[in-house]
Amino acid sequence: MIGQSGIAIKNIARADAASVVELAKYGVATLHEAMGRVGLLNPYMRPIYPGGKVCGTAVTIFAHPGDNWMLHVAAEMLQPGDVAVLATSSDNADGMFGDLLATSYRARGGVGLIIDAACRDTADLRAMEFPVWCRAVNAKGTVKATVGSVNTPVICAGALIHPGDVIAADDDGVVVVPKAVAATVALAAQARERKEAGTRQRLAAGELGLDVYGMRDALAKAGLKYFEDEAAFEREAGR
Amino acid sequence: MIGQSGIAIKNIARADAASVVELAKYGVATLHEAMGRVGLLNPYMRPIYPGGKVCGTAVTIFAHPGDNWMLHVAAEMLQPGDVAVLATSSDNADGMFGDLLATSYRARGGVGLIIDAACRDTADLRAMEFPVWCRAVNAKGTVKATVGSVNTPVICAGALIHPGDVIAADDDGVVVVPKAVAATVALAAQARERKEAGTRQRLAAGELGLDVYGMRDALAKAGLKYFEDEAAFEREAGR
Amino acid sequence: MIGQSGIAIKNIARADAASVVELAKYGVATLHEAMGRVGLLNPYMRPIYPGGKVCGTAVTIFAHPGDNWMLHVAAEMLQPGDVAVLATSSDNADGMFGDLLATSYRARGGVGLIIDAACRDTADLRAMEFPVWCRAVNAKGTVKATVGSVNTPVICAGALIHPGDVIAADDDGVVVVPKAVAATVALAAQARERKEAGTRQRLAAGELGLDVYGMRDALAKAGLKYFEDEAAFEREAGR
Amino acid sequence: MIGQSGIAIKNIARADAASVVELAKYGVATLHEAMGRVGLLNPYMRPIYPGGKVCGTAVTIFAHPGDNWMLHVAAEMLQPGDVAVLATSSDNADGMFGDLLATSYRARGGVGLIIDAACRDTADLRAMEFPVWCRAVNAKGTVKATVGSVNTPVICAGALIHPGDVIAADDDGVVVVPKAVAATVALAAQARERKEAGTRQRLAAGELGLDVYGMRDALAKAGLKYFEDEAAFEREAGR
Amino acid sequence: MIGQSGIAIKNIARADAASVVELAKYGVATLHEAMGRVGLLNPYMRPIYPGGKVCGTAVTIFAHPGDNWMLHVAAEMLQPGDVAVLATSSDNADGMFGDLLATSYRARGGVGLIIDAACRDTADLRAMEFPVWCRAVNAKGTVKATVGSVNTPVICAGALIHPGDVIAADDDGVVVVPKAVAATVALAAQARERKEAGTRQRLAAGELGLDVYGMRDALAKAGLKYFEDEAAFEREAGR
Amino acid sequence: MIGQSGIAIKNIARADAASVVELAKYGVATLHEAMGRVGLLNPYMRPIYPGGKVCGTAVTIFAHPGDNWMLHVAAEMLQPGDVAVLATSSDNADGMFGDLLATSYRARGGVGLIIDAACRDTADLRAMEFPVWCRAVNAKGTVKATVGSVNTPVICAGALIHPGDVIAADDDGVVVVPKAVAATVALAAQARERKEAGTRQRLAAGELGLDVYGMRDALAKAGLKYFEDEAAFEREAGR
Repeated sequence: MIGQSGIAIKNIARADAASVVELAKYGVATLHEAMGRVGLLNPYMRPIYPGGKVCGTAVTIFAHPGDNWMLHVAAEMLQPGDVAVLATSSDNADGMFGDLLATSYRARGGVGLIIDAACRDTADLRAMEFPVWCRAVNAKGTVKATVGSVNTPVICAGALIHPGDVIAADDDGVVVVPKAVAATVALAAQARERKEAGTRQRLAAGELGLDVYGMRDALAKAGLKYFEDEAAFEREAGR
Repeated sequence: MIGQSGIAIKNIARADAASVVELAKYGVATLHEAMGRVGLLNPYMRPIYPGGKVCGTAVTIFAHPGDNWMLHVAAEMLQPGDVAVLATSSDNADGMFGDLLATSYRARGGVGLIIDAACRDTADLRAMEFPVWCRAVNAKGTVKATVGSVNTPVICAGALIHPGDVIAADDDGVVVVPKAVAATVALAAQARERKEAGTRQRLAAGELGLDVYGMRDALAKAGLKYFEDEAAFEREAGR
Repeated sequence: MIGQSGIAIKNIARADAASVVELAKYGVATLHEAMGRVGLLNPYMRPIYPGGKVCGTAVTIFAHPGDNWMLHVAAEMLQPGDVAVLATSSDNADGMFGDLLATSYRARGGVGLIIDAACRDTADLRAMEFPVWCRAVNAKGTVKATVGSVNTPVICAGALIHPGDVIAADDDGVVVVPKAVAATVALAAQARERKEAGTRQRLAAGELGLDVYGMRDALAKAGLKYFEDEAAFEREAGR
Repeated sequence: MIGQSGIAIKNIARADAASVVELAKYGVATLHEAMGRVGLLNPYMRPIYPGGKVCGTAVTIFAHPGDNWMLHVAAEMLQPGDVAVLATSSDNADGMFGDLLATSYRARGGVGLIIDAACRDTADLRAMEFPVWCRAVNAKGTVKATVGSVNTPVICAGALIHPGDVIAADDDGVVVVPKAVAATVALAAQARERKEAGTRQRLAAGELGLDVYGMRDALAKAGLKYFEDEAAFEREAGR
Repeated sequence: MIGQSGIAIKNIARADAASVVELAKYGVATLHEAMGRVGLLNPYMRPIYPGGKVCGTAVTIFAHPGDNWMLHVAAEMLQPGDVAVLATSSDNADGMFGDLLATSYRARGGVGLIIDAACRDTADLRAMEFPVWCRAVNAKGTVKATVGSVNTPVICAGALIHPGDVIAADDDGVVVVPKAVAATVALAAQARERKEAGTRQRLAAGELGLDVYGMRDALAKAGLKYFEDEAAFEREAGR
Repeated sequence: MIGQSGIAIKNIARADAASVVELAKYGVATLHEAMGRVGLLNPYMRPIYPGGKVCGTAVTIFAHPGDNWMLHVAAEMLQPGDVAVLATSSDNADGMFGDLLATSYRARGGVGLIIDAACRDTADLRAMEFPVWCRAVNAKGTVKATVGSVNTPVICAGALIHPGDVIAADDDGVVVVPKAVAATVALAAQARERKEAGTRQRLAAGELGLDVYGMRDALAKAGLKYFEDEAAFEREAGR
């Protein structure tokens, strides 16, 4: 059951490395579209500094409000390329993660953190270039008193994430790509980018999206009426 | 009626270009004060990167939640120096605008976007230096299914904006200057800046605002009492 | 009584200068921990630009919503090294402080502002490197009509602050160190940093926090169970 | 200009009384639909007790945060059947209105209040059956120091309201019907209710909206596919 | 994948009726505890009137912001005792559901609605005693333009819900009991209530929870120190 | 220091009983005004049912997020007429208090709870008529793992509260009257109510507040100008 405490799973199946490498080439918006417009975490998840970017496999953490004990348990499960993903049993904005844990995570191969709570030591994290996406920045410390879980499925910022899924994050937010579809999504993202490149060229040359995408008929059918100017509109409206 | 759908007005009366050039010299706070402390959009509207600045004439867009169709319709109405301004029929934070639309808008002469919803591809927009003010950043994509309007009056983030009004935005937020008063407001802003320059010099030299603005009598009349220290206050309060 | 209006106290007892110098060496998170995990202002208080940092003695201001009169009164009480701290009688996000007041404050020796309201002219403030922590950025101007107080105790963003207390702020937020404990807290912060330096080295070398902090027994006692993999867990759960 | 202070207009043109009587028969949702899905105030405006309902002509008030002076000025302009509508120059949740003002408003013929701020004495207001829609309940008192305006156009909770417009409010929220379209909207509301009565009967008898509204073809065209059960879906998805 | 559009599953496996009857005897807080403190939806989900209560099997709906088309599709899938549960592809507070749909749902056997969006016609719904839990009340109407899904797994207000799961809701909020554990949870809830009945009697007689639950030793071990009065504490603190 | 953990003070000095009886006669808004417009808790603190009212002496509780242990410790300190007041070390909306604790509190003489977190079993609490003011309703259970304090000063919802202070709460919110001024405030409240009774009569008879309070001159001086109608205003504005 989602949200069960007391479980630490040591070994997990991760998305294949080749797919992660491929997915890392694309932005969050592109991956979300390539999956059929799904997989985003709630947009209240923001990077602690602009320009950060990460793509890796999820080690999931379930913790209780004001208690960061499980972040230490998770360190042991991290492998190179992993992104830690923390969900809590209820809304919380305490500063569960700081530069010491970042040092530890990096030493174990961890490449980033997605935390539906807060982090602190943000100047250090920026200096270390350890990217974090969180709901708040907060110096508030936490206790280590109640166990949660590591590597069980979690709902983090509204998205269901399984251990080993691919997590990609950039300035636009965070997206999860389930490991089963990682390869397919990478292909779809590539196709989308190719198509967009052509579109971008046409738009940059001044062509209109209305024509590039062929929207004029559909707009008319949907009821859009054009008027030369406001006076023309007022005349038709009989005012 | 504000919020009517299905209308696209091709040609609008814009504020005169000279006034726009003049208004562009001042910050949002100055323009707001120069108008008599009005015209601001709600402060939840924030720039996607610091240091962006825009001043131009509004092409207004009315859209429905989760639907960015009208942003494409608006592209055709953009003229050099225009700022697109999008309002929605209800609160929404989907990512309606990204780098493709920005490419198109720039190609048509658009110089910025004010959107009471979200945008995405923010790293690209920053790289392009295409400034956007929005209520959120969100990779969430949208549909193109329901028509709104272009170039009708809108209420965007709590402010009434007519097509052709001047929109100025910087790190402090967004302000609308109605086209009818654009020239007058530019003069008032200039006068205000001049006066502030003198005040700034006196304050920088250590003079107090209390004296520069002559506030001491009014403060006393309004009931402010000075005490040498806390002990003096406690004595008077009879504690 | 907290929140009484009409009082301006000219001279206050400030935390001793040596302690302030010492406290300035540490980050907000460290000071909060060194005090026993207390003293933080609500995390909605954010810096107007990243990398700002301040540590000084509080001149407190109590103001009413939409009225920045007392910020001018406070200028006269500022001494070199002071940080102005403004609380309001009810929630407000008007732009009470801008570059003119910053010019005046700096001329008097003020080194920063903590304001449980908004500020404006943020691009100028960043250029001046005058650091401000606030609940919002807002160009909205204010009136000067109703008196509050200066140098009385205030509750600012949920923290009780007395005039002369030490205020430290950085990217992680804002903390108040009561002047009576300033020296003690400085020592505790120093001790904490020393200890953390050793821990950091061990973590950077790949040791686990579980071992560095000796958490394994406590975790087991608290009910955490390890499983080799998900299959092992499913077997035990009898599913 | 919207938001100008210092203006009190004594006599206003009100929507015709017959239209107000007619509009009073319908709920807020019906009126909003009858106008073409426009006219609603932001849903953060809530009634102070369930079951309250009002329909009357707007006397508009523009006030500053924490200052309820203009509510007293407006009392003089109230005529029987008027609804007072207050907007502020910036977001505020002070308790600007209580049982004394309600007593005065009722004595002058006022029938309700829409206030984009807070009210207090809510138990008394409920006992008096004086309906109020507001953004918050708050005992916080206000000053009387700065003038705003009465009977100028305002933007209240995101909607543009002119003096004399019809305001209707119930448990679902608040809607404004511009006086120029009051009669037309009343007719459209009546037509809508008649049509809905027939639909309600069919739905109550167990007919499906899919058939009553003839949606099946459009759904298929839009891409909805039916599956007998999850197994059938999984088979088709080839999983 | 969670959030896939275009799928309508006609027949689903529902939790067994006997378990639903049993679970209906307990409050949301009890069920949440009986499951091991999991299963709650986010507390922003509130009933539209106090005292409403529902327990039934979920028919799940996935919809897009501002679009209530799928609520009509779901009506056909409702069976007696079902609770409709709607999630959206992004945060939205439009009024997607009103008295007409409630009439239809009731005719099909539906007993309530959980909607992570808004509803309207709330006075009618209260009169009908059709209970709804939602994030907001809003008269705002919606379009019918884009298909979502019915009877696929959804994440509603932060909780994962499968078609056929048990949904219980009361004044305290909403909880989901996965169908696989419905019977077990009913037993655990019964046991908990029995135990609480005994505890309640002892507490009502004036016994302390400290003694009933035997907490005194643990509190001392965790560091709680008792002082006769404030003076005693100050003495020990050496102040 | 505010927010120190590990302290339980058994005996406290309470406001004198006669003052509490006297203060209980007045509403929260009146008491707030009688103190000089101070003492209110943040308006996000709302009653769990309308019409509840309490006035008593504070037993203060300091707790950590998601941990309700100290509510049990506090039960032992409650005396007849006490109101429990809980603050947390960081924002939290877990359901820390329910019908079992209410049973215990009532048995010890407790008459209500002010909790800057959430409560649950709200239907039972309403049935018991045990009034609670809180920031949210939430069925979410809590742990008992970390000690806070009882009967130390707390900052609850933005207000400083000492053990033994008078707490009054009603539909308008919550106010604290420091015990030292309880008698004085009671007298001031009585005087205010007497004066208001006279005013109410005059207003009910149709007199205007403008005349009752003699505001006309001050309004003119502050710049308010009256116009017969909009046309007169437009003429003067020279439009």
